[in-house]
Amino acid sequence: MKNFEYYNPVRILFGKGAISKISMHLPEGVPVLLVYGGGSIRKNGVYDQVISALGSTEFYEYPGVQPNPVYEQLMPALDIIREKKIGFILAVGGGSVIDGAKFLAAAACYTGTDPWEILSMHAAVKVALPLGTVLTLPATGTEMNGNSVVTRLSVKHKLAFGSSAVMPVFSVLDPEVTYSLPKNQIANGIIDAFIHVLEQYLTYPSKAEVQDRFAESLLMILRSTGSKVFADSEPDYDNMANFMWAATNALNTSISMGVTSDWSTHTIGHELTVLYGFDHAVSLAIVLPGVMTHLSVKREQKMLQFAERIWGITSFDHQAAIMESIRLTEDFFRCLGVKTKLSDYGIGAEVIGQVIDQLKSHDVNMLGGAGDLSIEDVPAILASRI
Amino acid sequence: MKNFEYYNPVRILFGKGAISKISMHLPEGVPVLLVYGGGSIRKNGVYDQVISALGSTEFYEYPGVQPNPVYEQLMPALDIIREKKIGFILAVGGGSVIDGAKFLAAAACYTGTDPWEILSMHAAVKVALPLGTVLTLPATGTEMNGNSVVTRLSVKHKLAFGSSAVMPVFSVLDPEVTYSLPKNQIANGIIDAFIHVLEQYLTYPSKAEVQDRFAESLLMILRSTGSKVFADSEPDYDNMANFMWAATNALNTSISMGVTSDWSTHTIGHELTVLYGFDHAVSLAIVLPGVMTHLSVKREQKMLQFAERIWGITSFDHQAAIMESIRLTEDFFRCLGVKTKLSDYGIGAEVIGQVIDQLKSHDVNMLGGAGDLSIEDVPAILASRI
Repeated sequence: MKNFEYYNPVRILFGKGAISKISMHLPEGVPVLLVYGGGSIRKNGVYDQVISALGSTEFYEYPGVQPNPVYEQLMPALDIIREKKIGFILAVGGGSVIDGAKFLAAAACYTGTDPWEILSMHAAVKVALPLGTVLTLPATGTEMNGNSVVTRLSVKHKLAFGSSAVMPVFSVLDPEVTYSLPKNQIANGIIDAFIHVLEQYLTYPSKAEVQDRFAESLLMILRSTGSKVFADSEPDYDNMANFMWAATNALNTSISMGVTSDWSTHTIGHELTVLYGFDHAVSLAIVLPGVMTHLSVKREQKMLQFAERIWGITSFDHQAAIMESIRLTEDFFRCLGVKTKLSDYGIGAEVIGQVIDQLKSHDVNMLGGAGDLSIEDVPAILASRI
Repeated sequence: MKNFEYYNPVRILFGKGAISKISMHLPEGVPVLLVYGGGSIRKNGVYDQVISALGSTEFYEYPGVQPNPVYEQLMPALDIIREKKIGFILAVGGGSVIDGAKFLAAAACYTGTDPWEILSMHAAVKVALPLGTVLTLPATGTEMNGNSVVTRLSVKHKLAFGSSAVMPVFSVLDPEVTYSLPKNQIANGIIDAFIHVLEQYLTYPSKAEVQDRFAESLLMILRSTGSKVFADSEPDYDNMANFMWAATNALNTSISMGVTSDWSTHTIGHELTVLYGFDHAVSLAIVLPGVMTHLSVKREQKMLQFAERIWGITSFDHQAAIMESIRLTEDFFRCLGVKTKLSDYGIGAEVIGQVIDQLKSHDVNMLGGAGDLSIEDVPAILASRI
């Protein structure tokens, strides 16, 4: 096992009615900026619960955060933060709203020229406004980590930053607020969380047994209970609760401690989203089987462990076992209603050059953290997905 | 799944040489009290590493903390804390040293009459001196939670308290510092951690899949890798690292979220330790099979899950499967060199009245958190262990 440092001070308020506990964890006497998305929270009662929980707290609103949150849309919020002396950001929404709020929290305290440098130049984020979240879509895990991904449309860049300064002070996870989610968003959330686990697990043996077993636990739950959540004609509280807590644990950094992580599927997937507007999870579902197939020999040991422990496949023919596990993984995504080939979306070989150009524009040469994938591997991976 | 609140801000510094990172996490300009035990850290190099990491920090020492830390031995440290204006406690040792340090941290800020009230009257601990730990014996998990157990010899009381105020600011887990541990202490650590998991897991179904799967992960690792650690003729870094991280996760509160926990084995075990001086883990290894057998019908569903997922036992005869899992669990303890019957230690039926008297003296009527065990069940449990 590699050396590691683990630190996760996010307070999780989990369960029915948990939104009402927000007020106990807000700093006193400080104006709050309520950040949210397209307005679904106004229809499903979440907005009302939040306003009620805020009580007499002075607050302002910044709605309209888009999926794959957009730099250009976020920046005007900084004026409100300055003018109203905002001291706390409350993000109510899914991963995009929370990631957008994290960027605002960091940007509000940024002392350089342009906050975009936080993303483009990896400018260190040592101070940020404190923030809390009310999660409405189990998927990204951002509610319990210090990561954020933001897109700048004008330059077609979708970039990430990370800092413990933007870890939420608290995150509310009430499974009941997810009951009104459309099925495709639930499917996206299941796939997103499943692939988050794989990005941290499916590389090389690190002799990290707790991390491996925990990762496998989450994969089994996301596969079995995730499928139930997708199939349930009426929402089932416990199924949703288990999916929700599994998705959070999938990216709260615990399973990445002391192991070799990857994230190459995300690197390629981000470019597909920027180029074609794919949902984040859909882009991952398209790319992952290509990455797995391409690395099936190099990563044989861990892929066999995945095949055996998650899909129950054992075979003397190791590559056959791995290929079967990839097929079952892709089937799992398709059973959740997500098409997994670029050709399913009318995209052909032109994608290869476009993605390569994008990667080059960010100076990406090596992909992921495992050191076994470079930009030269990307054409073969994408070609296998057409 | 029940509602829950999860909060664990302990920073874990894990791996080879991690003691050297202490200085980065100490408050500046504040005298430190170094608390440790019988002096083994002076022989195995840990003391020297800690002193080196403290650098120019002003520090004082309070050695001699005993196993099952003793109130009477701890109290004089409060004078040093006051006189030297100690602002941070650094506990270097196993669970006893850390628990003792937590009590000191709370007692130093206690404004009531007598700090013993923190244990005897559950006086609320809202403020405590900050503390950090260097763990030398994987076992109790106290390095990543807010719990502490202290014994007052004069009245034969072994009592617990808990507060987020005494959660360590950081805990150093370097598997190499455990290499000089005697085998019986390693065995105790494995058993202690294994039973910690069971106290949180082996009650009633809570439909909490992440917590269940994580608990089962830890049980499997403690069983298989724990046995390897015990058998290794030379210490193996990765085996020790996995045991160490599993033991910490066994009681960092994550697996107890949203589920029904028990702790009745601990309640009875504590009395055996006070009465007969048993090592903590030995007392648990004696009591657990009795509690499991006694509750095998009431808790059948979860016990079957344990039998199947941990021991691979399936049978149409549910009670037979459970009894076989209890036998295998007890065998596991015995293979680690721990005798599991009271009669192995020359103790007979007289134990029953003594334990009952002890429990009555603490006004214990119901045992554990599952609501299915009272003081009236204790004679049968103990009788089965003679």
